[in-house]
Amino acid sequence: MGGRIQFWYEFASTYSYLSATRIEEAAQALGVSVDWQPFLLGPIFAEQGWTSSPFNMYPAKGQYMWRDMERLCARRGLPFQQPDPFPQNGLYAARLALAAKEIGGIGAFSRAVFSAQFGSGRTISDQDTLAECLQIAKLPAELAVRAQDAEIKQALFAQVDQARQLGIFGAPSFVVGDELFWGDDRLDQALELAAT
Amino acid sequence: MGGRIQFWYEFASTYSYLSATRIEEAAQALGVSVDWQPFLLGPIFAEQGWTSSPFNMYPAKGQYMWRDMERLCARRGLPFQQPDPFPQNGLYAARLALAAKEIGGIGAFSRAVFSAQFGSGRTISDQDTLAECLQIAKLPAELAVRAQDAEIKQALFAQVDQARQLGIFGAPSFVVGDELFWGDDRLDQALELAAT
Repeated sequence: MGGRIQFWYEFASTYSYLSATRIEEAAQALGVSVDWQPFLLGPIFAEQGWTSSPFNMYPAKGQYMWRDMERLCARRGLPFQQPDPFPQNGLYAARLALAAKEIGGIGAFSRAVFSAQFGSGRTISDQDTLAECLQIAKLPAELAVRAQDAEIKQALFAQVDQARQLGIFGAPSFVVGDELFWGDDRLDQALELAAT
Repeated sequence: MGGRIQFWYEFASTYSYLSATRIEEAAQALGVSVDWQPFLLGPIFAEQGWTSSPFNMYPAKGQYMWRDMERLCARRGLPFQQPDPFPQNGLYAARLALAAKEIGGIGAFSRAVFSAQFGSGRTISDQDTLAECLQIAKLPAELAVRAQDAEIKQALFAQVDQARQLGIFGAPSFVVGDELFWGDDRLDQALELAAT
């Protein structure tokens, strides 16, 4: 007991929604603690020559992903809506998440953002949506000010750098010790390792 | 009972190896029959602008995949070697598989090819390797002649066309009724649907 898992997620990522909604409960059942690590996939995709989400660039892959998400959410009893546009701009949400992390509220805030986007079809670059997410997470509205500090902006750049150094190329990703796991499909395997 | 699953695979595909080794047993346990559907990913990748496997084109993705395969094979007690070069040319193997399908031996032959490649590091474009795979599958050596018939070559083109029409963009893929599933991670979900 007492293991730890790093959860690397991008707010615009559909499969990150699946992991965000279940990771805390699944980790707790194994005595594992979760370290929420928001980052941006945009810069990492750009280095691979991708100008948008691969789900937009490769239509067959995109069409499949939406059906796969529909099926998985139905199995798990999760609401699901396809956000428009996709992918959403998760920059402000990611900065707010880092500000929330300073006061211990990152998990609740992140879940609220994922639910607003993929559960209710809200636009997560919208300041009103984010203000509601702070409320839902019982966090002070003033975090929106803190999120605009140079220190937080710099911290988000550092997150992207660290993700790159960890070999992360997609989201969600999980890090346990030296092992990297990619995709909601590997969450249970990662947690199992963290628990040993 | 009595359901059916189409198993679409490419011989060079690492994750297809995982599914090929377990699909018959898993399907049988649910009373589902397996329709083995070899195809080539090369033409489909080329249409997406990819000149090689995405695991070669995107190094972080490739490095992750090899480690993921190592871990998964270890968990399942499967031997695993990284073939050199990767990806292998699966053209002859795919033609032979279609020839084997005509006489009811496609599953055994395909498993032998995957095991030779990913279990023993053999080169599957090599005629000697393929001749051994025919032996292992207890199939006549003369299939190598049938595999060069224009009819078989044409049948493989038709497989690629059909894969494209089914929306297939990677391997392994599974088709049950109108539903497409991608990846060894979805095999159980696909079988579950086939069994209902």
